[in-house]
Amino acid sequence: MSEAAEPASPVALDAMGGDRAPDVVVEGAVQACRAGHGPVILVGDAEPVRAALDALGAGDLPITIEHASEVIGMAEHPGRAARTKRDSSMHVGFGLVKAGRACGFVSAGNSGAMMAVGLLTLRRIPRCERPAIAGTMPTRAEPMVLLDMGANVECRASHLVQFALMGAAYAEIALGKARPTIGLLSNGTEPTKGTETLREAHRLLTMTDLKYVGYVEGRTVPQGEVDVVVTDGFVGNVVLKLSEGIALALVERVREQLRGDWLGSLGASLMKRSLRQLQSELDWRAVGGAPLLGIDGVGVVAHGGSSPEAVANAVKVARRYADVDLVGKLRAALEASAPPDEHTSTAELPITRATGTHEQP
Amino acid sequence: MSEAAEPASPVALDAMGGDRAPDVVVEGAVQACRAGHGPVILVGDAEPVRAALDALGAGDLPITIEHASEVIGMAEHPGRAARTKRDSSMHVGFGLVKAGRACGFVSAGNSGAMMAVGLLTLRRIPRCERPAIAGTMPTRAEPMVLLDMGANVECRASHLVQFALMGAAYAEIALGKARPTIGLLSNGTEPTKGTETLREAHRLLTMTDLKYVGYVEGRTVPQGEVDVVVTDGFVGNVVLKLSEGIALALVERVREQLRGDWLGSLGASLMKRSLRQLQSELDWRAVGGAPLLGIDGVGVVAHGGSSPEAVANAVKVARRYADVDLVGKLRAALEASAPPDEHTSTAELPITRATGTHEQP
Repeated sequence: MSEAAEPASPVALDAMGGDRAPDVVVEGAVQACRAGHGPVILVGDAEPVRAALDALGAGDLPITIEHASEVIGMAEHPGRAARTKRDSSMHVGFGLVKAGRACGFVSAGNSGAMMAVGLLTLRRIPRCERPAIAGTMPTRAEPMVLLDMGANVECRASHLVQFALMGAAYAEIALGKARPTIGLLSNGTEPTKGTETLREAHRLLTMTDLKYVGYVEGRTVPQGEVDVVVTDGFVGNVVLKLSEGIALALVERVREQLRGDWLGSLGASLMKRSLRQLQSELDWRAVGGAPLLGIDGVGVVAHGGSSPEAVANAVKVARRYADVDLVGKLRAALEASAPPDEHTSTAELPITRATGTHEQP
Repeated sequence: MSEAAEPASPVALDAMGGDRAPDVVVEGAVQACRAGHGPVILVGDAEPVRAALDALGAGDLPITIEHASEVIGMAEHPGRAARTKRDSSMHVGFGLVKAGRACGFVSAGNSGAMMAVGLLTLRRIPRCERPAIAGTMPTRAEPMVLLDMGANVECRASHLVQFALMGAAYAEIALGKARPTIGLLSNGTEPTKGTETLREAHRLLTMTDLKYVGYVEGRTVPQGEVDVVVTDGFVGNVVLKLSEGIALALVERVREQLRGDWLGSLGASLMKRSLRQLQSELDWRAVGGAPLLGIDGVGVVAHGGSSPEAVANAVKVARRYADVDLVGKLRAALEASAPPDEHTSTAELPITRATGTHEQP
């Protein structure tokens, strides 16, 4: 929240990430600096980035450029790209974080690759088996945190418990709530529901100090009855994209209504803006980006279609996560909940194959 | 579609199922008969059912009563109830189907118990390892079929393939589409996405004669890009309930807007009805009920909160499924796609535990 008194550490920003890179990203860097969220290091192909920066007449701003010779595309396989494109803007960006030259790294590029490169470069924090991508979603009440949003398509019970611990620590920062409530997404609220993995996660969660409320259903998620919803990355991805899809379908329905009778179209036109707003709210990555929780440093994924404002906002939140020591808080949360012999509670769990690669949402 | 020339076989209807049984169900039976969808056998506690029927002055209608001494509650464990309450209205109802005294059975009660009792009484059709609950959902385009909606929380690849085969045959009837398109719900469209189970199902589906389009994402589901969406019962349940929840949250947002400025509230009030309609459309079971696909007889689950109209509509669709020989079409679909040695394609599949019990959505 508060800016440090000493010169602030820069935020590294992937100039090559996103649908309209580097121009939109560079413009976002400029906006971030003008709003006092700099300094920023733009990471990418130096020549076009310099040209974009010069075109904006931003010579007086605290923006530097770090060259990276490769780019990871949106459709590339995350694990493979992480292993082979060692001079990608993501490798260089996370490298700056590792070297202590940046306080965090932001990219609007391939989110699966962000996770894979972040893991490879910064490694995991202790007691985190699988890092997760955490997002905030609007609800009828206040926004909530949803994780994992797509990094891990299959999860063990212990992973879900770690997501809950990290999600709670993150929600305290992101939602400003002390002791947020946690729910485990299931197909019903009775403890007999869910898969074997979920029932085991449920049992383990009741033994933590978290304000765990038990299973929550898809129907209650949009009601905002809990602050943090925990699920695996497959279901999290479906929830996220379905929510966006429904909002989009509704906006289109309103548009169709506009062509109908004049009374309905009057209503539709008056409501249009608020539905549009809802649609943009549902687009999680547009709102400041989603942090990677569990890697040993600050990494933030922004939407591929981010506007300059969204990029600037992602830079702002990355700085904030560094300032409030998000990573330290995640470490502490996992540390505090480690059982005396931390292997006993998960050793005999059923399931499931570790995917090895991290899928992008 | 066409009524048989000989006296129609009755539809058995669970008089004890639903939030306001037996009154609302009895009223639904009366409406169904008045609309020409009788005869109906009301199954349940004979005395109150008779009283409800008499109160409606329906003595001239082709409605009979079959006594059942037990009732399975909405919150009961499906498998346990199926094993122990052998004289429940569901056991008696499916028993009428088995004995050839009814052409189908409809209940607005515990859907998991419907599946469990249906399986126990009627058994599965050949080559169906796991029956599924199929529903229709509205989209931006035409309605689509979604299955499984909650019967099987964990699925093998072979189960998903069978859902696709049965879903296609059902969609031909429910949507009136020859060769409907089929999509497999995943966390991305690239074939590298999904779990190992999904990738195997994807591989098997490309070898069928189905019009299989590959993976579909949560974002495209509400766009109606495919006619049938296949997923396991856990994800299907989340998709279904989340859709309902978002529609509900939107309607509530509109209501809140009503208390805001007059321009917005005018728009909200003009749009209110169309959002309400959307909300009710999203409530799958309200629209005629969802059939159990894969049991050897017609079983239809109606919403617990069904109105008399919805109950009457479920009776109508149950009769229609019997008339068009839905079960025969499902048999044929599974038969046609059986590989020469039908075990080779699924024998070495990865995963997963058979749950044994069928969970209710």
